[in-house]
Amino acid sequence: MAGSSFGEQFKITTFGESHGEAVGVIVDGVTPGLELDIAYIQKQMDRRKPGQSSVTTPRKEYDKVHILSGIFEGKTTGTPLFIILYNSDMRPSAYDDIEKLFRPGHADYTYLHKYGIRDHRGSGRASGRETAGRVAAGAVARKLLEHSGVSIAAYTKEIGGIKCETYAEDEIEKNAVRACDPVAAVKMIEKIEELAARGDSCGGIVECRIRGVRPGIGEPVFDKLDADLAKAMLSIGAVKGIEFGAGFAAAAMLGSEHNDQMNQEGFLSNNAGGILGGISTGEEIVFRVAVKPTSSISLPQQTVNLEGVDQTISTVGRHDPCICPRIVPVIEAMACIVLVDHYKRQAAMHDQRLVDLL
Amino acid sequence: MAGSSFGEQFKITTFGESHGEAVGVIVDGVTPGLELDIAYIQKQMDRRKPGQSSVTTPRKEYDKVHILSGIFEGKTTGTPLFIILYNSDMRPSAYDDIEKLFRPGHADYTYLHKYGIRDHRGSGRASGRETAGRVAAGAVARKLLEHSGVSIAAYTKEIGGIKCETYAEDEIEKNAVRACDPVAAVKMIEKIEELAARGDSCGGIVECRIRGVRPGIGEPVFDKLDADLAKAMLSIGAVKGIEFGAGFAAAAMLGSEHNDQMNQEGFLSNNAGGILGGISTGEEIVFRVAVKPTSSISLPQQTVNLEGVDQTISTVGRHDPCICPRIVPVIEAMACIVLVDHYKRQAAMHDQRLVDLL
Amino acid sequence: MAGSSFGEQFKITTFGESHGEAVGVIVDGVTPGLELDIAYIQKQMDRRKPGQSSVTTPRKEYDKVHILSGIFEGKTTGTPLFIILYNSDMRPSAYDDIEKLFRPGHADYTYLHKYGIRDHRGSGRASGRETAGRVAAGAVARKLLEHSGVSIAAYTKEIGGIKCETYAEDEIEKNAVRACDPVAAVKMIEKIEELAARGDSCGGIVECRIRGVRPGIGEPVFDKLDADLAKAMLSIGAVKGIEFGAGFAAAAMLGSEHNDQMNQEGFLSNNAGGILGGISTGEEIVFRVAVKPTSSISLPQQTVNLEGVDQTISTVGRHDPCICPRIVPVIEAMACIVLVDHYKRQAAMHDQRLVDLL
Amino acid sequence: MAGSSFGEQFKITTFGESHGEAVGVIVDGVTPGLELDIAYIQKQMDRRKPGQSSVTTPRKEYDKVHILSGIFEGKTTGTPLFIILYNSDMRPSAYDDIEKLFRPGHADYTYLHKYGIRDHRGSGRASGRETAGRVAAGAVARKLLEHSGVSIAAYTKEIGGIKCETYAEDEIEKNAVRACDPVAAVKMIEKIEELAARGDSCGGIVECRIRGVRPGIGEPVFDKLDADLAKAMLSIGAVKGIEFGAGFAAAAMLGSEHNDQMNQEGFLSNNAGGILGGISTGEEIVFRVAVKPTSSISLPQQTVNLEGVDQTISTVGRHDPCICPRIVPVIEAMACIVLVDHYKRQAAMHDQRLVDLL
Repeated sequence: MAGSSFGEQFKITTFGESHGEAVGVIVDGVTPGLELDIAYIQKQMDRRKPGQSSVTTPRKEYDKVHILSGIFEGKTTGTPLFIILYNSDMRPSAYDDIEKLFRPGHADYTYLHKYGIRDHRGSGRASGRETAGRVAAGAVARKLLEHSGVSIAAYTKEIGGIKCETYAEDEIEKNAVRACDPVAAVKMIEKIEELAARGDSCGGIVECRIRGVRPGIGEPVFDKLDADLAKAMLSIGAVKGIEFGAGFAAAAMLGSEHNDQMNQEGFLSNNAGGILGGISTGEEIVFRVAVKPTSSISLPQQTVNLEGVDQTISTVGRHDPCICPRIVPVIEAMACIVLVDHYKRQAAMHDQRLVDLL
Repeated sequence: MAGSSFGEQFKITTFGESHGEAVGVIVDGVTPGLELDIAYIQKQMDRRKPGQSSVTTPRKEYDKVHILSGIFEGKTTGTPLFIILYNSDMRPSAYDDIEKLFRPGHADYTYLHKYGIRDHRGSGRASGRETAGRVAAGAVARKLLEHSGVSIAAYTKEIGGIKCETYAEDEIEKNAVRACDPVAAVKMIEKIEELAARGDSCGGIVECRIRGVRPGIGEPVFDKLDADLAKAMLSIGAVKGIEFGAGFAAAAMLGSEHNDQMNQEGFLSNNAGGILGGISTGEEIVFRVAVKPTSSISLPQQTVNLEGVDQTISTVGRHDPCICPRIVPVIEAMACIVLVDHYKRQAAMHDQRLVDLL
Repeated sequence: MAGSSFGEQFKITTFGESHGEAVGVIVDGVTPGLELDIAYIQKQMDRRKPGQSSVTTPRKEYDKVHILSGIFEGKTTGTPLFIILYNSDMRPSAYDDIEKLFRPGHADYTYLHKYGIRDHRGSGRASGRETAGRVAAGAVARKLLEHSGVSIAAYTKEIGGIKCETYAEDEIEKNAVRACDPVAAVKMIEKIEELAARGDSCGGIVECRIRGVRPGIGEPVFDKLDADLAKAMLSIGAVKGIEFGAGFAAAAMLGSEHNDQMNQEGFLSNNAGGILGGISTGEEIVFRVAVKPTSSISLPQQTVNLEGVDQTISTVGRHDPCICPRIVPVIEAMACIVLVDHYKRQAAMHDQRLVDLL
Repeated sequence: MAGSSFGEQFKITTFGESHGEAVGVIVDGVTPGLELDIAYIQKQMDRRKPGQSSVTTPRKEYDKVHILSGIFEGKTTGTPLFIILYNSDMRPSAYDDIEKLFRPGHADYTYLHKYGIRDHRGSGRASGRETAGRVAAGAVARKLLEHSGVSIAAYTKEIGGIKCETYAEDEIEKNAVRACDPVAAVKMIEKIEELAARGDSCGGIVECRIRGVRPGIGEPVFDKLDADLAKAMLSIGAVKGIEFGAGFAAAAMLGSEHNDQMNQEGFLSNNAGGILGGISTGEEIVFRVAVKPTSSISLPQQTVNLEGVDQTISTVGRHDPCICPRIVPVIEAMACIVLVDHYKRQAAMHDQRLVDLL
């Protein structure tokens, strides 16, 4: 495969560039008979869409969901869902100035080396816009997970060096940065606005919690649940790291501290982050991802042009000064897709319809 | 697939349990005509094998490499290499005491919930022993990479809270913990020995540097080079996190700091860790993985038995008090496999024999 | 995967039902830098479209090609091509009468048993309309093959018991049934018109010849070139069999007759059909497929309704009385896709950019 | 992948050459908890092994089954089964004479063009010996199918132009050619012995019947059940064609004849061969494969050497004059593997543990 598909039994294939006519996704392997209305998907799209607040890009993509196949009388048929999102606010000419420059932090340089040809209008497939299809597909997966009592929630844990001190679940969707601490959220927003005014940007950390996954989900060896989640998260453009449970802090812990002991009530701690040997323990699955600062900034930066000659670049455009708030629904979407895929693989392993052996 | 295969055009499939008769690997997609001698593979196996020093398990597995197919007169034929490593020091009876207990930090509990059946002798597929086949396959990939000037080296960066302060490349293979700082190495070894004496264990951080990868390797969107490396690393039992370049530190950086600017000499920094948009930049690829403390410790721990009744467990056995030194060649092996696979996919994309368009 | 994707390095994923809003395809793994104009693809679509002559269905689908991504300034970029074909002549209400009946020869009964739910308007994914996306993708593959001198041509060999006696290559696209014998073509057309008048249908045999494939294409063991071609052809709805070279006639031949001997000029015969051990010999690749009679006929037939009660059905609609003429471009398209995929896999095997060993 | 793996949820990967040390298979995705004894697998191996009668090669491979992983206390654990079959009767020196010649009908020429290097001892991966691993894996799949009441039986239908006139199921395993007509079997054996005496060989047709498959198995579009069976069968070296149900005869039938009508008792005929739209109907699945004459014959044939100079070759060795009797268990094995894989995919589609929607 050439890299635009993800998943095995619940499989998504995306297409589209940021400044083309549309982006979208084919979702193959959808459980048939699922009641699915467009409003449910649209709700997730709206969480991702630009222009939600002062801290996101003013680019307006209404991201209106169109389902062109795979649904009949409000229910999935089991055949591929095709979801398309027409691009409504393309301004490719805005990119004329940078046609011959490599933008620092962007994939311009690497795409040209990979393909020998480059569409310079926006970031093409490397654009955050590509994730719109993922969020649409993720909504379908989320709907399936709801039926088995699984819930997924990601939120901002840290932005620009400001850390959340509390975990107030109900506050997350109420503030513009989707932080779990409303006090920290206010400081984060101030910080972002200040940086935006200077033409700079900042990064952050997003945490994700998944509840209700029954023990036994995940395949040993290469397709461990955490390995597949790691791949899913690192496949999101701005993500530079991931850690599960105690994560990097485990490096300084003793075995006697890190091991999650058990008694008849269950696990006494969750340093493992809900996954042992690549398989879910039934505890909350917890991971954090490192989000880099937005690459597009208007401060002048050194770069070269296609001929390798020194140039100065200042990326004027409509960009989020911090990606965290809008990456939250993308992280949730990818987590939903990984989980449904692994639930389906677990069903295949036991293939109850074939044999009932145990 | 059921999780025991990895890679697409250079593909490995492993089999075997820690206390069965053998472990091994089928390597499919090997470039034909490669000169390959067993000693070259054996050298990598010897770096992974137990019993190398006071800080590794005294279990003796000679890990003698047997190649049963895919080679003819010292050269690869392009057909699947099959490499088998017979287990020479199985003591399954050593596990009789824990037949009905879940060892904390191990996959006993999750395997039973996944499969409904469990082989209690050792950790089965979740054992570090499974990685022997990966190291053998990785040696083949490494040989291919040598031909294009790519080198891979991993080393211990931190153990038990003790951090390396210097980077002395030549010292790495000279100390028992494979640390890049010989002074820190002495302290690490003392720490490990002290913990081992108390029946405890510790974790650490391993860093990997890959040099000589030309720009353009990696597939956009889901099969990004960093996404595939992340999956590969998280598929190793004890790994709980990964970060590329500046990694989690990027969360507190500004865009103007994190962006790697360029001039006509090349990149001015490498916060990206050698990968932009999922594709290699030509700079050094750098990532770090978090290694958890060894789960098997002899200190008493709380657990339950198969009936859910509270029990105390003390894992007596032959285990590494710190996995870092022996995980180094496994990390290198997986990195080699990911890279060869992506080099091959790049060749497929341009398919020079089919067309020459650019 | 759930069955809507085909290929590995050149990979197509289709979506869409016959009476939904659109059908289409994502083509991933396209060689970058390929000059590709819409007219080239449209030409192949027009060969497949209905309403071409008296022997094809009067349903009018203009099948106008829209490419929404993967192309820039007339050249492929290497990112996924997305091609959509809006359905322009849906009449789902025409299917109201058969909402509760299983049409003989159709997949109505099996879809309901598979999914537990059925979209009764037309044949959904089992409709020949699904192949429109394949033909579009196949045109891209064909363009790539042209660059290496490979040509593919399929044609009708037999219809309704009338066999071609000659092979006149230039006549194929000149007659309405795409037969290689213009005299037989006249009889075939008469036969089809007569059957159509009676409300019946007929089958036939289509042969495909591929020239210019260099020796060495195809993977041994499971992904043999003939195995992948067989899968590709049997994945087309109406195909019930395939044979290569001498095919079923080989069953009655001696080894001394069937073996293709060689001398310094090359092969002395081509009973193998251009493939030995699953790998191309450099000779013409020749295979034939059996095409069943169109299932939709207006003659009354016995069937049951959803409750299992006996019913009589007469399928009134707009259907081809013989599928052969319109299946020809679908067979060519799938052959092109298989070949490009295998050319790319051969490039990956030798990965010239990585090593040059031989 | 490089071609040595088959299947998705029940996946086999084979290795080994005819004159190397061993052949074998990793079977991944085995349902856990299955009672599996070696004798059950050995029984299938014995049906495939050489030296069973006067009509098979005298080469003696005891094909003793060794399972090195994936089984514990007589039950499968769900982790990969590894089955190895050591080669016991290699005589690579017997091939010295042909080191520099291309044997007609063999893959010598194509392997050299593909890989640029060739192991001339026997046929390497193209040897029928590679199928030993398939038969071992197929026995595991067969055991799983038994639990759901599915039975698979292949048998010789025609050899050397002699056709079976009756279908006597109980006679199949009683005659040396596994023909379904004992009278025809006697003539077939005479014919084979006569040809063997002259140094020639012959082909035949093998039919396979699968009973008890419930309706709904198979994926629409590309992974149709018949498409996957076709690929599986064409992946067997000597197979040159396949047809389902009425097969090639459908080309001369009318729609009114070919359509399988229904009444409340079920289907009134089975021209479809048990598959409609790529999905099982619940009727018997029936297909036939064309088997070419054995390529190795001792009659002199024209060929060229590595330098392209004309030569005469006479393949002296231990070969079956007709492959049909020994291909029967290979065909059954591949059919079992395809079916279990599709049963598992059907389980994944409905993922009962996740949701129960219908």
